[in-house]
Amino acid sequence: MLALCLTAQGPQVQPDHPEPRVAAGEALIGLQLGGICATDLELVRGYMGFEGVMGHEWVGQVQAHPDADWVGQRVVGDINCPCGACETCRAGRPTHCPRRTVLGILGRDGAFSERFALPVGNLHRVPEDVTSEAAVFVEPLAAACQIVQQVHIRPTDHVAVLGVGRLGQLCARVLALTGARVVGVGRSAGRLELLPAGVSAARVDDLGDTRFDVVVDCTGSPQGLSVATQLVRPRGTVVLKTTVHEPLPQSMTPWVIDELSLVGSRCGPFGPALRLLQRGLVDPLPLLSAHYPLSRGVQALQQAGAPDTVKVVMSPGPR
Amino acid sequence: MLALCLTAQGPQVQPDHPEPRVAAGEALIGLQLGGICATDLELVRGYMGFEGVMGHEWVGQVQAHPDADWVGQRVVGDINCPCGACETCRAGRPTHCPRRTVLGILGRDGAFSERFALPVGNLHRVPEDVTSEAAVFVEPLAAACQIVQQVHIRPTDHVAVLGVGRLGQLCARVLALTGARVVGVGRSAGRLELLPAGVSAARVDDLGDTRFDVVVDCTGSPQGLSVATQLVRPRGTVVLKTTVHEPLPQSMTPWVIDELSLVGSRCGPFGPALRLLQRGLVDPLPLLSAHYPLSRGVQALQQAGAPDTVKVVMSPGPR
Repeated sequence: MLALCLTAQGPQVQPDHPEPRVAAGEALIGLQLGGICATDLELVRGYMGFEGVMGHEWVGQVQAHPDADWVGQRVVGDINCPCGACETCRAGRPTHCPRRTVLGILGRDGAFSERFALPVGNLHRVPEDVTSEAAVFVEPLAAACQIVQQVHIRPTDHVAVLGVGRLGQLCARVLALTGARVVGVGRSAGRLELLPAGVSAARVDDLGDTRFDVVVDCTGSPQGLSVATQLVRPRGTVVLKTTVHEPLPQSMTPWVIDELSLVGSRCGPFGPALRLLQRGLVDPLPLLSAHYPLSRGVQALQQAGAPDTVKVVMSPGPR
Repeated sequence: MLALCLTAQGPQVQPDHPEPRVAAGEALIGLQLGGICATDLELVRGYMGFEGVMGHEWVGQVQAHPDADWVGQRVVGDINCPCGACETCRAGRPTHCPRRTVLGILGRDGAFSERFALPVGNLHRVPEDVTSEAAVFVEPLAAACQIVQQVHIRPTDHVAVLGVGRLGQLCARVLALTGARVVGVGRSAGRLELLPAGVSAARVDDLGDTRFDVVVDCTGSPQGLSVATQLVRPRGTVVLKTTVHEPLPQSMTPWVIDELSLVGSRCGPFGPALRLLQRGLVDPLPLLSAHYPLSRGVQALQQAGAPDTVKVVMSPGPR
């Protein structure tokens, strides 16, 4: 089958990749649409040392599972596959299971192939009135919802989202639903223009002395946290979404003196993300920049890294 | 009057320091006991660039104030002197006022002198049944209470306090009151032995694979945060009490992947600290290492920096 793989030589489209092995409790899923995330681009640069089929943002259709009710269902799915038995899992934190595999990121082939396998417990049915073009955004939209799962955003808060790329755009949309004042801060005019009505757009130099109750770092840059530290008010909160490999030379003294809080934030809950799409409260479609056939996956990855590109999706059929 | 001053040449006892100027709204206070804090030792090393009378931990007696009810009262006092008018003050965060002065730390002479001035709004009466030897611990005990003011410590939590010096000892005592399991982690056998009944003592190498819900960094060392990051469980909280000047080369990626929270924590509320002392729930007296006359203040500072020393206090009378 066709698959976009990350190899020691970089990303490659493999037309004759072996069919996935489906373990007990797993469903076989046919890919409809896959979305490229900043993490995929980081993996290409060597992050996590991952090799295998790429891809963790997807919408697909169940092709095979012992429970016939699942077959034919259009689904999305949690990317973390926990052991279910360790202390962390039993403490209710399965996405942090130290033995977990992660779809297309850690120890498990991903979704950028004609067919792939995932535990049925990870699957969420996509409501009929949510298009597949919207549903492919569920995984990053869930990651945006994770911010409000972790941090109490108050309707009176003033919130800055640093970085208005793939994830920042979704975070700004979710945060605006709280009633808080939200400003998206970026450098690319094209991306700033994609911010929805009700979210302000600014360059960092425009902010003057404004200090925010909450700053979300979606920059993907080692400088993001330093900028966030300068923009947050005393006793404010910085939500860190950026993963960068580089050690970060930064004195933590301002964190103590200003009693700042830092909250690292990763994957989020799929149920709320699907509900926001179904209710029309978040419209991700303006963020779709390009649609490639999976056979041109390497070009799709290149396109995803280009300035002003937001979301690039791929589908296995010819296009 | 006698005063322990920090000058460009280092700390000096000055026998003929000018009397304090008492501004409108301030009380003139006579020092009874002053306590030396790690921050004082940092100031001597150049932190904050402070020059003037040192000292911010103290218990004293009001000698003069227009409201006669205050005169003769035994008091302790908040060290932050806010402007009361700016946006930060009006938002209810006066200890973060950008125009604040801080007793013996920033723009205001401290308490290590026979007499000093402080706004009467900062003062708290010391109950009769709290000795002055206990009351001199109110400021650092309030800083320990600030942890439970900022972070919800659950009775089922497993908490590690890194560093069992001046502040760590008080933090361990306050955290133990929540019912949580608390372990004090240090290197000095003498200091570990000072941990109270009910708080475990450990060296960091003894902890094995134990991962804690909450880790409080009271090490005062640039390495403290790295150790805390290794000891905290996924989605756990690190409370940072340590202020170090050195930039901290540290990748923040584990904070995102493990969704850790960092909470910077500084000064705390005096009311709860006084109540804990009055109720006998915290006994700081075993932490008293030495009592010097203020005239030997330079030696007192040296003693405070010695291994196994915990709290050194000074009083202005001859001793």
